Amino acid sequence: MDDQRIAILAHEMFPDRAKTALGVMRYGDQEVAAVLDRETAGTRVHDHLVESDAATIDDAPIAATFDDALELAGGPGDDGIDALLIGIAPIGGGLDDSWRADIRAAIEAGCDVIAGLHSFLNEDEEFATLAAEHGVDLVDVRDPHEGLGVAEGRAGEVDADVVCTVGTDCSVGKMTATMEIVAAARDRGIDAAVIPTGQTGILIEGWGNPIDRVISDFTAGAVEEMILEKGDEHDLLVVEGQGSIVHPAYSAVTCGILHGSMPDALVLCHAAGREAVHGYESFELPAIPEYVDLYESLSAPVADADVVAGALNTKDVADDETARAAVADLEDGIRAPATDPVRFGAEAIVDAIESEVLEG
Amino acid sequence: MDDQRIAILAHEMFPDRAKTALGVMRYGDQEVAAVLDRETAGTRVHDHLVESDAATIDDAPIAATFDDALELAGGPGDDGIDALLIGIAPIGGGLDDSWRADIRAAIEAGCDVIAGLHSFLNEDEEFATLAAEHGVDLVDVRDPHEGLGVAEGRAGEVDADVVCTVGTDCSVGKMTATMEIVAAARDRGIDAAVIPTGQTGILIEGWGNPIDRVISDFTAGAVEEMILEKGDEHDLLVVEGQGSIVHPAYSAVTCGILHGSMPDALVLCHAAGREAVHGYESFELPAIPEYVDLYESLSAPVADADVVAGALNTKDVADDETARAAVADLEDGIRAPATDPVRFGAEAIVDAIESEVLEG
Repeated sequence: MDDQRIAILAHEMFPDRAKTALGVMRYGDQEVAAVLDRETAGTRVHDHLVESDAATIDDAPIAATFDDALELAGGPGDDGIDALLIGIAPIGGGLDDSWRADIRAAIEAGCDVIAGLHSFLNEDEEFATLAAEHGVDLVDVRDPHEGLGVAEGRAGEVDADVVCTVGTDCSVGKMTATMEIVAAARDRGIDAAVIPTGQTGILIEGWGNPIDRVISDFTAGAVEEMILEKGDEHDLLVVEGQGSIVHPAYSAVTCGILHGSMPDALVLCHAAGREAVHGYESFELPAIPEYVDLYESLSAPVADADVVAGALNTKDVADDETARAAVADLEDGIRAPATDPVRFGAEAIVDAIESEVLEG
Repeated sequence: MDDQRIAILAHEMFPDRAKTALGVMRYGDQEVAAVLDRETAGTRVHDHLVESDAATIDDAPIAATFDDALELAGGPGDDGIDALLIGIAPIGGGLDDSWRADIRAAIEAGCDVIAGLHSFLNEDEEFATLAAEHGVDLVDVRDPHEGLGVAEGRAGEVDADVVCTVGTDCSVGKMTATMEIVAAARDRGIDAAVIPTGQTGILIEGWGNPIDRVISDFTAGAVEEMILEKGDEHDLLVVEGQGSIVHPAYSAVTCGILHGSMPDALVLCHAAGREAVHGYESFELPAIPEYVDLYESLSAPVADADVVAGALNTKDVADDETARAAVADLEDGIRAPATDPVRFGAEAIVDAIESEVLEG
């Protein structure tokens, strides 16, 4: 998926609730020609980004419809737009009917459509027929490949050290932390790679098993498969975690990733100020030390892994000083170094991984 | 699936490794006309059963092939055999090629075929074509219904008290404990029901979601759906657990069932003498108190549930005295009453559920 020129659909959610869009813009190789958001159409991407993001994400126009985006970008094809990427994922992962006109327009313009939804574009009769007529591809990155199976408990055999990001909740920045840790490790010459487990990670990396969409019995097995595939090619694998181990809906996926990856160490990811489960507000989050105990004791019988560092998402914290205080609180809770890898860089985490894991 | 006359395929595995076959024979309403096991063909079911099973399971002939079974049972149809049930499930859940001749013979004789395998009969071209020709049904009980989704965290809202069986490993007797607890509770006049989560439970109860076969993101949701459906019709729901929370391959399913059912109490199931994960012998089982801590601390943020009783599978223990000593050890480990529900009855568990949950 390198070097494509894409439009990213993020209606009414850009940028704060458009996790996939923002992830691809930050870390993907694709060139973003336009964003579709009918609410902020007429503005530009940089009008909505915090400083740290604006420094790394290219600016692009925001359009109300795919046809408008096409006009702004100079038409379909190599100099304009190659593909439409669905950059938002509602709870449940369904396709919103209000996006259909844009998807039709993209197909009719000869552009591929790429999505990571639970409902597959290829199983949508209208889109499948239209795509065949226009000779374009519908790419469902959340459609697992055939041939997955149950884990054999073998991920611990690989040469690479394996670090797993784990979270206090969904949407606390596990994917972002994973990307930042690998980038910072590479900057110091460590041969590190991402093990992508979710749609955004897969869209960025161009490969990976969509762990939340596999048969539940194969959850750990689908992670193990990736570890075994990459584990002898690199020195450090950082596994993109999902959900949280106490999430009322998603803990199964979290647990399967933890045991399937058989990690050597864990990085606990948290969002500053988060007190209840996102979207399940009647469930309070446990205290940070409880998460450390839970993740470590749950991991221990399968793989001995300690929480060696923390990643705090402080995007909703106004100033650096307050953010630093919040990072210090997380450090107290986990009794290990922490940072906001976006705001302050991932150095502190990579330091901990080097001393506790790579040299350990 | 009531009142069917079935043959049960259990080649080379009856009875000790034929968990599904034995479960259906013990607890199902189906009448078993014959068992297929080419290794013990010519003997009878009662030749292989322990005393407690022989008292509750009807005797039947064991045949080498479906055609032999048909002859022994008096032909197909209401007075002979209505259906062939696949009563064994290899690791991975695939269909063994050596079973195909029996499945073909059953279809050609006009019998339905019922299976709980990961690979579906209905997706097997040969069987699907043959079944259509002969007007018989291929029933894949592990094929989840459409319309499952992510959990909403609502299982705690139902009127019924919910007890979840949890295990130290696979194949320790969680399904059996569930059936025995519900039967013993009903004997005392408690309006209790099973929430089946695996193929055997579903075959016995005639309904249920195959939790290990749903999309991993929907694991908890598929349990929650069943709790919400039955939770206002009964006073006690006993959820059939799966796997173990420290299983290298299956912990995701275990975790999803725990959080999706939002239990009021847990019953810890263990097999006497088990020291390593079944089929994954390099992984030692943690000590019993560690399981109690893990299950309770993992449950707490979603639903406050203590381990109130233990169920010990002592089928490999020769005499009652040794079995009682093993039960006492489990009681020490969990600091709560325990029993082998098959060998000694489930009374001690139902006592604990009554005092700790129903009257609690």
